[in-house]
Amino acid sequence: MKLLTVDTIDEARVKLLNCVNHWKVPVNRLEIAKTLGRILAEDLCAPEDIPPFRRSTVDGYAVIAADTSGAGESIPVYLKFAGAVEMGKAAGFSLKSGQCAYVPTGGMIPDGADAVAMVEHCEPFGDEVAVYESAAVGSHAARIGEDAQKGSVLLRRGARIRPQEIGALAAAGIAEAPVYAPLRLALISTGDELAAPSAQMRPGEIRDINTQALGALAAETGYHVSSARIVKDDETLLEAAVREAMQTSDIVAISGGSSQGTKDVTAQVISRAASPGIFTHGLAIKPGKPTILGYDRASDTVIAGLPGHPVSALVVFRVMLSWLVRQLTGEKEPYAVPAKISCNLAASPGRTVYQPVALCRGDDGYIAEPVFGKAGMISTLTAADGYIVIDLNKEGLCDGESVEVNIFGS
Amino acid sequence: MKLLTVDTIDEARVKLLNCVNHWKVPVNRLEIAKTLGRILAEDLCAPEDIPPFRRSTVDGYAVIAADTSGAGESIPVYLKFAGAVEMGKAAGFSLKSGQCAYVPTGGMIPDGADAVAMVEHCEPFGDEVAVYESAAVGSHAARIGEDAQKGSVLLRRGARIRPQEIGALAAAGIAEAPVYAPLRLALISTGDELAAPSAQMRPGEIRDINTQALGALAAETGYHVSSARIVKDDETLLEAAVREAMQTSDIVAISGGSSQGTKDVTAQVISRAASPGIFTHGLAIKPGKPTILGYDRASDTVIAGLPGHPVSALVVFRVMLSWLVRQLTGEKEPYAVPAKISCNLAASPGRTVYQPVALCRGDDGYIAEPVFGKAGMISTLTAADGYIVIDLNKEGLCDGESVEVNIFGS
Repeated sequence: MKLLTVDTIDEARVKLLNCVNHWKVPVNRLEIAKTLGRILAEDLCAPEDIPPFRRSTVDGYAVIAADTSGAGESIPVYLKFAGAVEMGKAAGFSLKSGQCAYVPTGGMIPDGADAVAMVEHCEPFGDEVAVYESAAVGSHAARIGEDAQKGSVLLRRGARIRPQEIGALAAAGIAEAPVYAPLRLALISTGDELAAPSAQMRPGEIRDINTQALGALAAETGYHVSSARIVKDDETLLEAAVREAMQTSDIVAISGGSSQGTKDVTAQVISRAASPGIFTHGLAIKPGKPTILGYDRASDTVIAGLPGHPVSALVVFRVMLSWLVRQLTGEKEPYAVPAKISCNLAASPGRTVYQPVALCRGDDGYIAEPVFGKAGMISTLTAADGYIVIDLNKEGLCDGESVEVNIFGS
Repeated sequence: MKLLTVDTIDEARVKLLNCVNHWKVPVNRLEIAKTLGRILAEDLCAPEDIPPFRRSTVDGYAVIAADTSGAGESIPVYLKFAGAVEMGKAAGFSLKSGQCAYVPTGGMIPDGADAVAMVEHCEPFGDEVAVYESAAVGSHAARIGEDAQKGSVLLRRGARIRPQEIGALAAAGIAEAPVYAPLRLALISTGDELAAPSAQMRPGEIRDINTQALGALAAETGYHVSSARIVKDDETLLEAAVREAMQTSDIVAISGGSSQGTKDVTAQVISRAASPGIFTHGLAIKPGKPTILGYDRASDTVIAGLPGHPVSALVVFRVMLSWLVRQLTGEKEPYAVPAKISCNLAASPGRTVYQPVALCRGDDGYIAEPVFGKAGMISTLTAADGYIVIDLNKEGLCDGESVEVNIFGS
């Protein structure tokens, strides 16, 4: 009986990055409307000032602030009406001392003016306007470049594009943006017992979960699933499938066949198909210990042997492969939700524990309730909102201890 | 000068729901692989037991637990080897007292057996197997229906489909799932000053942000953007655009033209185009006060006049229209991240304040730093990770006070 000599997560991550640190993730230039959720591949500078002219932030009267000094609710200052600025047009005139000009919200503030008095505090009288407030220099006025200066960094590489980033790109007149293309990932689910979702099942068979669940997680993570197939526990068939997938993918993820049973052939197949081959055989993680990681230099492909149990496979995918994409694209880690654990929780000495939890509201913040279940049970994950990580050096968690919940899907 | 009589958010939400509580959001039946991120439209029951037979969770020997009573590391129990179960096949035989059978991980446990001893604790000797552990009834065995029982609720209406939900559907043999179809939303951005992202700008013009940013937020929220266009501040043109959009959309969102300036025509247009028309004119929210909400019974359309400032428009869209989708689909509110505010923050009496914040790590959890900026400045939002809500009855926040940060994009 061979014992696995396992890597810690950090050890395995260093080895994995060493294999792929020469990778340059391809970049797509897309219309900004199509970049939602993608990761920006370059720092982008503003090609023009935003706004490109001094804009009023209110409906009001552009004034020279000094002219309004001392004005108040009962003591107006009277200014000569010099004209009205039209929306979307140049002001076309400049203000001299003692003058004012009507400016709509977003309209151009005429040269000479240095503040805007709100229309609510002004009253026109013939060719004059009574101003009932003492305007401070710059009040209700957006400066040229106040939102972004021409040439300044507007958005940084690694930013996930949200609606407001699309807005900022639009504001700057950037119609196309460079975002990382998805890496290509091939999924292979091995097992003689696996039946497709709609197949008629025979005794002893179960439905294949992993190509579906891992495929969705891969897509959520930013991979392109280049192929997904079920292969019997047969070394020849599996090796052929792996070799084929290596030609068309950056990463081949095989689930199943990585424990110590007689039918477990993934390790042999990876050893034969890849050179230098396996660099991690067993991961100090619970669930997910029977994980294999390898690399093939000729095809420049990472090969991951994930556990067959769906919960374990999803955990290891997150920890190694979702993490890898963030490393390569510079995307920051998602935020976790601080909470208190609802019970004592045993750790697993020498292994990092990923414990699914459900979140609920307590009197004082969130409570994280562990969801227990066998690693083969997908209901463990559907009942969970996220997971907590218990460090491999930690002896466990006490009821009420602070934890951080990593929310699934964020 | 007409003063706005504003609704609180809760008042406006009740009125909005009253208009649309007869809406039945259409349902799409999609292949499960295409349901990621969608909202489940019905409770789904498991059509078959998961797993459909008793499965071993380890490589080991199926035993009758009572036979192993008293066994231990140095005192094995010897059991007759009755055969090996093949993966994906029926066991084909049953165990009698004194017998055992090899079962791989995921293999069928033969009738008669009630536990599995791990292969690591067993040793074959000819036609016998030495078992070095006392197996408890049910150990290393998944019961029929343990993950989900036939007929039990597998997933509830309103669940957002994550990778694990797709896995659960696959496990249950459900190949297609009913998810809510997106509601149709038309976007109209009004303003004489608006230039398209790639247009050559003239003095006094600025780039249109709202169709891009609101379009992305609408898509993220689960709307289908049925049309998006820029219209000049012209009552006739705007009314024609609104009437056209009402025929092809469930919601028409107009941004710009809802403040009190001379060019503000949205309210008049909604009043003419819709009957019974406007039900909320002004919202007790900061930013976002100049918001108009209306309804047209004949076309069964909601018409929202959002502020022109992009930050305000995005806030109001989230508060009213993203919220509306969750109400109609039963999706739960996303989790917020508890944090401490980094400074004193003034509230706005009688208005609910939505304050963008950036999150950073403190010694003891997250710190929320307010990002200040004029409502027209999109950089206020690109620098923010989320927002906090200050209740309209609250006088402000003190430095260090606990807040909950709603993360953008979650």
